[in-house]
Amino acid sequence: MSKADLYIPTYDDVVKAHERIQPYVHKTPILTSTYFNNLSGAELFFKCENFQKAGVFKARGASNAVFSLSDEQAKKGVATHSSGNHGLSLSYAAGQRGISATVVMPRTAPQAKKDAVSGYGAKIVECEPSTSSREEVFANVVAQSGADFIHPYNDHRVIAGQGTCAKEIFEELGELDALVAPIGGGGMISGSCLTLSNISPNTKIYGAEPKQADDAYRSLKAGYIIADDAPVTIADGLKVPLKDLTWHFVSNFVSDILLASEQEIIDAMYLIWQRMKIVVEPSSAITLATILKNKPLFAGKKVGIILTGGNVDLKKVPWM
Amino acid sequence: MSKADLYIPTYDDVVKAHERIQPYVHKTPILTSTYFNNLSGAELFFKCENFQKAGVFKARGASNAVFSLSDEQAKKGVATHSSGNHGLSLSYAAGQRGISATVVMPRTAPQAKKDAVSGYGAKIVECEPSTSSREEVFANVVAQSGADFIHPYNDHRVIAGQGTCAKEIFEELGELDALVAPIGGGGMISGSCLTLSNISPNTKIYGAEPKQADDAYRSLKAGYIIADDAPVTIADGLKVPLKDLTWHFVSNFVSDILLASEQEIIDAMYLIWQRMKIVVEPSSAITLATILKNKPLFAGKKVGIILTGGNVDLKKVPWM
Repeated sequence: MSKADLYIPTYDDVVKAHERIQPYVHKTPILTSTYFNNLSGAELFFKCENFQKAGVFKARGASNAVFSLSDEQAKKGVATHSSGNHGLSLSYAAGQRGISATVVMPRTAPQAKKDAVSGYGAKIVECEPSTSSREEVFANVVAQSGADFIHPYNDHRVIAGQGTCAKEIFEELGELDALVAPIGGGGMISGSCLTLSNISPNTKIYGAEPKQADDAYRSLKAGYIIADDAPVTIADGLKVPLKDLTWHFVSNFVSDILLASEQEIIDAMYLIWQRMKIVVEPSSAITLATILKNKPLFAGKKVGIILTGGNVDLKKVPWM
Repeated sequence: MSKADLYIPTYDDVVKAHERIQPYVHKTPILTSTYFNNLSGAELFFKCENFQKAGVFKARGASNAVFSLSDEQAKKGVATHSSGNHGLSLSYAAGQRGISATVVMPRTAPQAKKDAVSGYGAKIVECEPSTSSREEVFANVVAQSGADFIHPYNDHRVIAGQGTCAKEIFEELGELDALVAPIGGGGMISGSCLTLSNISPNTKIYGAEPKQADDAYRSLKAGYIIADDAPVTIADGLKVPLKDLTWHFVSNFVSDILLASEQEIIDAMYLIWQRMKIVVEPSSAITLATILKNKPLFAGKKVGIILTGGNVDLKKVPWM
């Protein structure tokens, strides 16, 4: 995407997205926990996107992108090279519209991931486990099929879709003092910024990022995008860097980015499973980890937390 | 409790219980799953008592018993010798009323169980790990304190409290074709029978029981209570036998008891965690296991399922 192509979505796009995707996604519940309120000293509201279709908030953005396509484009299908939650969500959304989705994945990807993506109906095309192979194979897929490339986060349709989550929080709870969302590529937090800067401008927005993949934190401090090559963290949804569109929102509307260590992420994940009886990913649990680490910042405040997803390998829970 | 003491609770007791406990328990959500609807061929409604206070439906019955006490009795406190979910729930309820609760537990009980019970504020009195020691120690506790013994299930106040769960299901969904609840001592299913026989008499009620602890199944077939000594099953909430009060409801209102093997229970538990992103106990998952084993019985029907609790040791998940 060149700078000239950079369309910055508006809150009107979020409203339209919400109408468009309503038949295909859940209005997820917001849970509270006396235990975590006591532990944090804040009043916490957990938006449970782990209960979302495909197990992750990305079903919102993917559905908005897929159902925004013209009939002509839709016939050619959609494609991506994300083998994680975006691949799942795009496969889900394409299935709902009855169009084809192609996901380019390294042949070395775990079989469980391949099964999950193909379980929602997408076609998997394998590449070698290298960036050059992935790009070559993906370019071939798009050239041959004419499929629309839907980027996991640097896409205005995706960001407008993710913005529907903060819209639901505001509609249910009114104005909050703060919202904490994980930050990886920045899709969810950009959608949240887009929505809240329009309808709840006094709500402070915090990103939660792994200490071991703190490129967004360093970007915010530096004032320009810093992209790391291959950070290693258990929060596997948060390894990717910001891009121009998400940087726009993060740099303009995020108050701060809070960091958590791997052990803090695991501890928070364990506590959420144990106390709230819900399954969340490390990339979700990091939000609570950063709040418990920064209690003075949130004490006495009403704080929304986006639990972004629940797609974990139950046979490899990290505290075992 | 002698036969002469046997007061059989009425639906009016359930209504009163519901008003009484409303400030202290959650109206838990009812979740649905497209995946499980497709898998079962039925329309399934999961009542999530794993989200209940203390992580289990027993907070209902315990709260009703505790808040039914006269002020005079309340001053003397309550006592039980259940170290599992009833101990937790009684401790929780007593804490809400600000009265003392004593739980007699074998000194060999896992520290985690002791911590959980004392975490809610109850006093633990240890006994030797034998029935005779437990009974002796418990009798001493009651004699010295005058505490009210609240039985985990064979108590009309407890059963009326558990009946509020089926009442909430009916109020939210209207008449169902069937309700499936786990059966151990029979407290939850008795409360469900009490409620539904009054307000939804066409709803068939099924118990779900471990094949390895099938005493309720054999009781229903025989026409009298059969109590096993020490059945071994992963569904640790379902090891106890029916007693006279629960037998009254089970023998009169339960259509059938369906059995599941240990592996079927574990498989269903895994599927619920994976697909619904919620943490449930083996004793809860058995409901889905029996439905998936008896698809023709439920095909095309609207079926309520009580997911009774979510108190599991996350460090010992059974598929690892």
